[in-house]
Amino acid sequence: MIGLFDSGIGGLTVLRSLQKYLPNEEFIYLGDTARLPYGTKSPETIKRYTEQNIAFLKNKGVDTIVSACHSASSSILRFNITDSLPLLNVIEPSCRDAIKLTKSQKIGLMATQATVDGGQYAKLIPAPHQLISQACPLLVPLVECGWTEDHITEQIIERYTAPLLQKNVDVIILGCTHFPLLRSAIQKVVGPEIKLVDPGDSLALEIQKMNRPQKTSQLQLFLTDNSPHFLHTAQRILPEQNLTITQVDL
Amino acid sequence: MIGLFDSGIGGLTVLRSLQKYLPNEEFIYLGDTARLPYGTKSPETIKRYTEQNIAFLKNKGVDTIVSACHSASSSILRFNITDSLPLLNVIEPSCRDAIKLTKSQKIGLMATQATVDGGQYAKLIPAPHQLISQACPLLVPLVECGWTEDHITEQIIERYTAPLLQKNVDVIILGCTHFPLLRSAIQKVVGPEIKLVDPGDSLALEIQKMNRPQKTSQLQLFLTDNSPHFLHTAQRILPEQNLTITQVDL
Repeated sequence: MIGLFDSGIGGLTVLRSLQKYLPNEEFIYLGDTARLPYGTKSPETIKRYTEQNIAFLKNKGVDTIVSACHSASSSILRFNITDSLPLLNVIEPSCRDAIKLTKSQKIGLMATQATVDGGQYAKLIPAPHQLISQACPLLVPLVECGWTEDHITEQIIERYTAPLLQKNVDVIILGCTHFPLLRSAIQKVVGPEIKLVDPGDSLALEIQKMNRPQKTSQLQLFLTDNSPHFLHTAQRILPEQNLTITQVDL
Repeated sequence: MIGLFDSGIGGLTVLRSLQKYLPNEEFIYLGDTARLPYGTKSPETIKRYTEQNIAFLKNKGVDTIVSACHSASSSILRFNITDSLPLLNVIEPSCRDAIKLTKSQKIGLMATQATVDGGQYAKLIPAPHQLISQACPLLVPLVECGWTEDHITEQIIERYTAPLLQKNVDVIILGCTHFPLLRSAIQKVVGPEIKLVDPGDSLALEIQKMNRPQKTSQLQLFLTDNSPHFLHTAQRILPEQNLTITQVDL
């Protein structure tokens, strides 16, 4: 059983990738919605929350833990948080993929301000490769509004991606859990030549190679605060699944 | 000494209004940045946080408490939270002002989804007046990005205000702490005939009429999480003040 955690609902895009590549797997998802967003909080606070999320999932009997949250993944790398269980994150696999895919050796990163400031992607993409980062703080709220196909959203994406294209990136990492939901809008703006890396897919493909035992597909969903808003967003990300949410304290 | 609390930094626009109309007053401001935003959380959670904020300020020796947060103010009205000290909120004074100002008897409300769903403004604006509400979830992030004067922001404001103007509102309440920072952009889009009500100003004018004793102007600023992001936003709202932040646990 694989346990995923995120500061909120966005990490369900990572779950969606995992379900696509691991159709016979049991999952537990923990969204710390009572304390989201993590990105604006201090490194020490994010570290404490990350450790509490890991402890919760261990307690539920998972054999592998996935940090679906980019802020928590940054914290794991920054503080070198380890565990007796395999502890995977969304940052490392996407960097490996981006390095494989680029020809110009110039890789773009679209992420939240906190992820850009955290600098973990830059550490994992060493010279001669060059990482050009762009904080895109409006994209999460645009996704949460459902404006995923909208001319205003395209203008905002255009503004965010222009500096990346000017520097000749040929690969862009979608470095925030919400951004895969804007994949087609981003692809439309940057054009078909630019390769987009979805960190959920990169991670899922690496886990797929581990040849895990086949189980019956299953999902348990836990949130630290359960308001209708969250169920609504969750159903937008996983439209074909009948979701039941259990509220928990950490 | 007046104590204000908010889920974050936005409530400093209310403090700014209070400082403008009460130049000789001592203030304590508490921003619960570790747990923001309140709007997406459940009513019971917001109530618990509101009571903790009130307890913190009482403990600091204030004589009056102001809920600068629209979500917390909704909670105070909804659950009829009272205290031995005067407990003021940002919703009631702005409704009184809007009713005074309107001629069409049609009042617009721009607010977060949570404030609109909470329905407290609608309760305070009874027939024959009519409240037309518009959730504007992108405006807070736009302010936090600093895109307060920007053609993309104007397009978004245009989309949000069009349904209000179609229904012939002549007054619009800026029902979120961040929106006064978009006042000139909103006024530009809706035109000079529409009156904008800033709830911080409405509240400040009511407190001014209480003829409080004159003190030496002073501000103490407490946050439950102190990251550079918050100081940055705080300084954008109060650019002329030298801010010192103390981090506290509630």
